[in-house]
Amino acid sequence: MSEELTGNCLVAQSGGPTAVINASVAGVVSEALNHENIEEIYGGLNGIQGILKEELIDLAAESQQNIRGLRHTPASCLGTCRFNLKRDEDFERVLEVFQAHDIRYFFYIGGNDSQDTANKISKLAKQKDHELSVIGIPKTVDNDLILTDHCPGYGSVVKQICTTVSEMALDHESMGQHDLVSILEVMGRNAGWIAAGASLAKGKENPDLPPHLIYLPEVPFSMEQYLEDVKRVLSKNRYCLVVVGEGLVDADGNYIAAASSSTDAFGHEQLGGCGAYLQRLVEEHLGGIKARSAKLGVGQRVAAHCSSQVDNDEAFMAGVAAVNAAINGETDKMVTLLRGDSEPYVCETGLAPLDEVANGVKMLPEEWINEDRVSMNYQFFKYASPLIRGEVQVPYEHGLPMYVQLSKNRVPKVLGEHKFA
Amino acid sequence: MSEELTGNCLVAQSGGPTAVINASVAGVVSEALNHENIEEIYGGLNGIQGILKEELIDLAAESQQNIRGLRHTPASCLGTCRFNLKRDEDFERVLEVFQAHDIRYFFYIGGNDSQDTANKISKLAKQKDHELSVIGIPKTVDNDLILTDHCPGYGSVVKQICTTVSEMALDHESMGQHDLVSILEVMGRNAGWIAAGASLAKGKENPDLPPHLIYLPEVPFSMEQYLEDVKRVLSKNRYCLVVVGEGLVDADGNYIAAASSSTDAFGHEQLGGCGAYLQRLVEEHLGGIKARSAKLGVGQRVAAHCSSQVDNDEAFMAGVAAVNAAINGETDKMVTLLRGDSEPYVCETGLAPLDEVANGVKMLPEEWINEDRVSMNYQFFKYASPLIRGEVQVPYEHGLPMYVQLSKNRVPKVLGEHKFA
Repeated sequence: MSEELTGNCLVAQSGGPTAVINASVAGVVSEALNHENIEEIYGGLNGIQGILKEELIDLAAESQQNIRGLRHTPASCLGTCRFNLKRDEDFERVLEVFQAHDIRYFFYIGGNDSQDTANKISKLAKQKDHELSVIGIPKTVDNDLILTDHCPGYGSVVKQICTTVSEMALDHESMGQHDLVSILEVMGRNAGWIAAGASLAKGKENPDLPPHLIYLPEVPFSMEQYLEDVKRVLSKNRYCLVVVGEGLVDADGNYIAAASSSTDAFGHEQLGGCGAYLQRLVEEHLGGIKARSAKLGVGQRVAAHCSSQVDNDEAFMAGVAAVNAAINGETDKMVTLLRGDSEPYVCETGLAPLDEVANGVKMLPEEWINEDRVSMNYQFFKYASPLIRGEVQVPYEHGLPMYVQLSKNRVPKVLGEHKFA
Repeated sequence: MSEELTGNCLVAQSGGPTAVINASVAGVVSEALNHENIEEIYGGLNGIQGILKEELIDLAAESQQNIRGLRHTPASCLGTCRFNLKRDEDFERVLEVFQAHDIRYFFYIGGNDSQDTANKISKLAKQKDHELSVIGIPKTVDNDLILTDHCPGYGSVVKQICTTVSEMALDHESMGQHDLVSILEVMGRNAGWIAAGASLAKGKENPDLPPHLIYLPEVPFSMEQYLEDVKRVLSKNRYCLVVVGEGLVDADGNYIAAASSSTDAFGHEQLGGCGAYLQRLVEEHLGGIKARSAKLGVGQRVAAHCSSQVDNDEAFMAGVAAVNAAINGETDKMVTLLRGDSEPYVCETGLAPLDEVANGVKMLPEEWINEDRVSMNYQFFKYASPLIRGEVQVPYEHGLPMYVQLSKNRVPKVLGEHKFA
């Protein structure tokens, strides 16, 4: 890759939104402005799907307030997609769009599927002799990307869930009632990172504090064991607060509860309903014990009003690092977050090959789960605790958070319409 | 009532917790310290149920940080109950406890059932010649007490729900996906105040903004109309955000969805599951349209991390006003919130007879619901909008809110054990 590569840059977002994904866009835009090799700064609307449609906006034309406001605005300011590039004509179209708009720097913010997409685009560009630097920026509440210590988006969803768990616990403690099982269903399709994160609400001092039981996709679910766990907690405590990850599976690896039979574009089953299922089990099998369930839904992943400053800063830093890597001649890499060995917690960025990152999945380490299989040990606490620190200050107006909407000045299209399958 | 009444005061909390009910306790304690007629300041644990057990704590012995910390600590710091005083021996026991501990001022913080309990205790005290001032302090997220403009607790639950709705809307807007119905189930057993409050997330400018459809317990639910409503929204918008109150009923007044057949101590059915029900209706009747549902559960009513400063201030003010009313010789009254006629919004306290308040229910005014029956008009906006203003500043430690736990120094018991039924 030539260090003198000059042209336009394009940043786009893919996959599920987070509370801090826009901070990465702000990082890219802020840093890109510092480099003369980067001429125009474009945003691609709705990820690769919008790029196929040549839907580009001029990010340099956005007001400074807007770009600053992205740092506290949740969800995907450019729009996102769950679209899997498969057809040759789709890949070639991406290249055509890049050539037509002289895109020489491509920053794709997303999870493993998105890093895979970025990787394939880069390979095609090489084949077609279109000089292009492709740098992925990690993003996923699921925290399941490999080769990075953790992923931007994770700390904030955990902070939101722990805050909710702490408040629910105070509510349950308030009530004179005995024998209540309260279940909170949280996200996490394949890995239990999010559910495990709820354990931070305990603090490290007292393992008997809520959440009392955490059910992880990594641990095959057994109804008998669950009912025993609940009875054990209720023998010591007036209520039992349970956190369950949506991706819970049985001993055969089948999902415990699927809300519907639909699958998304990547073939992932759309899950839901574990919390309600655990509630029913108590009602049907444990007489005299009340059960309630709650399900935070998508709100949990975009709760900027309760997001982590550490997470936010790192998301911004990842955007900055992506631009610097590209300017320094790197390509086919994803920015990673590297944790320092010392205390207190420090984090800097590194780079990992897209080839290796794409489609890998980092599971929760087996050895961080306690022997009881429903709680996390000190190693997990040490890992996750720094990620939820600090409170993002969101401005409010009339009692509601003020989030920005980009002006989205369109870059004129120069190509014909693309035919989707 | 003698203006020279001297003795101890007792404050207790009843019913479901809120984000600001402890601010009322802080108001009572702070103001009680100013009056020499009040000697000891006691708290009753777990509402009237704990008082029957003579479980009193010394609130004056709490540290000043603790009392100050109550102003941002959600749920019921003294514990609460859902216990209906019915038996003569229970009423008489309450009086015995009051006599044994020279309780001359009784402040009961709660909803309509609790005000009814306070009223009955006052009547019995008069019969038994125990001079006692009884002042109720309003508290309910349901906002359904009569004779008060609104209830402490309501503004905060609405602020939390509107914030969540705004963030969910950004998430849905981010996704390229079309034809998504996203349903959020919120509290509200008899009245639609909470669900209606979600409409503030629209702002007053644009009725087409989310939440697009609000289903209220006041409006009999029709499946056909619901499916038509959803189709209408999806003809204009890529997604349809629905808010539904848990107490939704059909044309015959039957609850649409009861999570279980259990009832609480007051005979109220425990509700839940409306959101999942509305999700299923879409999946079964509208082909090609995806549906998701979320249910905030008890977390919504105790979300101090996202609570309203106006609500918090008024809860504190209600506690202060209760003490002042009692000291001025009032009894058998509930503190009310009175809204000024002018703009900007101002609020002061008044008093209403417990006899009138007890067991009354204030429904959402019919004329504040738009003709489409799924949105609120400007009158509602004008009413509710000031109540969510201002953000309570919660202190954080290690990334989590720092809430206080009272020391709870017990007042020595002097009576024998009480026999419950």
